[in-house]
Amino acid sequence: MARLLVAQSGGPTAAINATVAGVIQAAWTYDRNLQILGAVNGIQGVFEEHFIDINEKIRNAADLALLCHTPSAALGSCRLKIKKREQLEQIVSILRKHEIKYFIYIGGNDSMDTVYQLSKYCEEQGIKDLFVMGAPKTIDNDLIGTDHCPGFGSAAKYIATSVAEVERDAFAYTVQAVTIIEIMGRNAGWLTAASALARINGGAGPDLIYLCEVPFEIEEFLSQIRMIHKRKPNVIVAISEGIKDRDGKYISEYGAAQGMPVDSFGHAAIAGSAKYLENVVKEQIGCKVRSLELSLLQRCAAHIASGNDISESRMLGMKACQCALDGMSGRMASLTRTCNDPYSVAYDTVDLSQVANLEKKVPLEWITADGHDVTQEMIDYLLPLIQGVTPIQYENGVPKHIVLY
Amino acid sequence: MARLLVAQSGGPTAAINATVAGVIQAAWTYDRNLQILGAVNGIQGVFEEHFIDINEKIRNAADLALLCHTPSAALGSCRLKIKKREQLEQIVSILRKHEIKYFIYIGGNDSMDTVYQLSKYCEEQGIKDLFVMGAPKTIDNDLIGTDHCPGFGSAAKYIATSVAEVERDAFAYTVQAVTIIEIMGRNAGWLTAASALARINGGAGPDLIYLCEVPFEIEEFLSQIRMIHKRKPNVIVAISEGIKDRDGKYISEYGAAQGMPVDSFGHAAIAGSAKYLENVVKEQIGCKVRSLELSLLQRCAAHIASGNDISESRMLGMKACQCALDGMSGRMASLTRTCNDPYSVAYDTVDLSQVANLEKKVPLEWITADGHDVTQEMIDYLLPLIQGVTPIQYENGVPKHIVLY
Repeated sequence: MARLLVAQSGGPTAAINATVAGVIQAAWTYDRNLQILGAVNGIQGVFEEHFIDINEKIRNAADLALLCHTPSAALGSCRLKIKKREQLEQIVSILRKHEIKYFIYIGGNDSMDTVYQLSKYCEEQGIKDLFVMGAPKTIDNDLIGTDHCPGFGSAAKYIATSVAEVERDAFAYTVQAVTIIEIMGRNAGWLTAASALARINGGAGPDLIYLCEVPFEIEEFLSQIRMIHKRKPNVIVAISEGIKDRDGKYISEYGAAQGMPVDSFGHAAIAGSAKYLENVVKEQIGCKVRSLELSLLQRCAAHIASGNDISESRMLGMKACQCALDGMSGRMASLTRTCNDPYSVAYDTVDLSQVANLEKKVPLEWITADGHDVTQEMIDYLLPLIQGVTPIQYENGVPKHIVLY
Repeated sequence: MARLLVAQSGGPTAAINATVAGVIQAAWTYDRNLQILGAVNGIQGVFEEHFIDINEKIRNAADLALLCHTPSAALGSCRLKIKKREQLEQIVSILRKHEIKYFIYIGGNDSMDTVYQLSKYCEEQGIKDLFVMGAPKTIDNDLIGTDHCPGFGSAAKYIATSVAEVERDAFAYTVQAVTIIEIMGRNAGWLTAASALARINGGAGPDLIYLCEVPFEIEEFLSQIRMIHKRKPNVIVAISEGIKDRDGKYISEYGAAQGMPVDSFGHAAIAGSAKYLENVVKEQIGCKVRSLELSLLQRCAAHIASGNDISESRMLGMKACQCALDGMSGRMASLTRTCNDPYSVAYDTVDLSQVANLEKKVPLEWITADGHDVTQEMIDYLLPLIQGVTPIQYENGVPKHIVLY
């Protein structure tokens, strides 16, 4: 009896469970009696043979809907990189033992590398009855081979909404002030770019947007603030957590030198750029300054997930599952934007050798020449991704979540 | 020609504009030709004679709805405390000059003090044609004389939802970790108590809730974490920003001694308790630790405002306005809970001498004996306040806001 296995990996998003829902849907329409297993905590759960029977937990459309609106990885996650050939042998032997013929792995870069290695190993070993497919997810939007990544649109919608709300909050006061909002993204500034959407309905902020793709210069930053202060009291700044100086040193590392918190290895946490800049602005400009880290909130805010994002995430799970059931292996389900207005996407697959271990940064031509904003092309790219609201189920006034294990 | 003036003050909330909407509604039903002015930036706008004609900006039910769902103070805010009798004289003379007969001031403690002083001054001076009423607002829920404060329910709903989402996020991993969530509240722990609602649908966190009403002991905190780690890898902790040790020293001040950011006067910011505790847990327990400040987000998250809160805020604006039009002065519109199940409230008024400059803390009997959770009575009190969702208007995928000036 052939079985299908699904697992999740990497940093959680508000949309990664919708991809599991898509996998389940495609499996159901293929054969309602197909056993669907979920590995708990990604590939780590495979090594530990920690599986749950999905059909016992998800029985109908209502369960699927609840799964789609539950943030984070309902099957648990891991950060495990495959480094040795023996690990691949072991995975194959466990999958065989459990009669698993189809394996859908949902994740980011590292997880796609696992799918890639596993499918290559199967090919080399002449294994023809194991079909491994990847489905993308990452709020960072830095995967190659897909127009954008599931999870990104929801994080972008949360960021745009929150920055617009913070702008209203700051606007209420007349004293000179700066609000610095730190947004996730170590090497790619996509999420920070999404803060520009806070202005889409005519809002007055952010005033300055600094992505990690462009070297950050503290003097330029201060002079921009001084200039804006001449025309309005409130300056809203959005920065990527990973902004670096000309020498490639993270701005957050500057903080460590000044006695700011470091981790147990003495490294300044990557987060903390905003806190450091808060102190710089206080010292150099002397006005009221607040720093704000959107932190985990931006990746798990399912309550304001993007309708398009949840729908596409689900479709990508369906695509990956259908392809595996059709005998495809070693590829990742992907999105191709076929039209921007009206927005439409095609559900394709890409070769994982083009995806694994690579990173898609923001094209420099989508950042304005002055280095502190994004262009209209970026807005046009982002806008469709945050459209639509999701019908959240509230119980006792709080969104309801599904728990699978 | 008599005019009505409305103004907002203090820290913004997601519901304070709904109170303005209520004032407008009541004025409209009284006399659609009554001129309604808005003072820009609260009482500061009165001193500056900076008024806008509300009827020009808000024309119909659609505008009113948009106003209700716009966060922060649409008329702007200020933090201005009346200290001298001459200021009262000046206010009265400006109000007279602009033919203002009714003045509704929406705000917290300081604003209610302004209303109180102003009405007392009028009484002493024998001024009988100026009616000043207060309408409460504060996310802190620390005003005396009202069952709860408008703005609090929406912040509580945001906190409960976000903490539930963060719990899901943390749950996905198997490595030992602690997530510390810092919630607003310097002297009153109401908002932090609302984090308990994250468990209302069966969720697994927060595990520990520390309010500022109870002395915080770092050793007890660490020992609780160690104990919880024995049964599960993820510990979620909610703390009030204002937690203090036995000697009344803010935990955030401990950070200053260790080189953590201080303001230009050398004071540790009141926010920062979580960041300090993050470092303590890293050093003493050595596991993965994240700290998260909900900061401004919790007071301006109109996108997930509580339906009950918005409705009550509006009703309180109506009440304050109707009372002023009926010739009442020097009182604050207030809520009396007449029944908890089914939940219902009466719209009353209270004497401002009972409200101004006082603070309502969490009763100690609503905190568990072990000091790190809240009781069922607290849950029963909080639960009705976060019920209902608000019909947010999205435009371009982002909630639409109204701009009045």
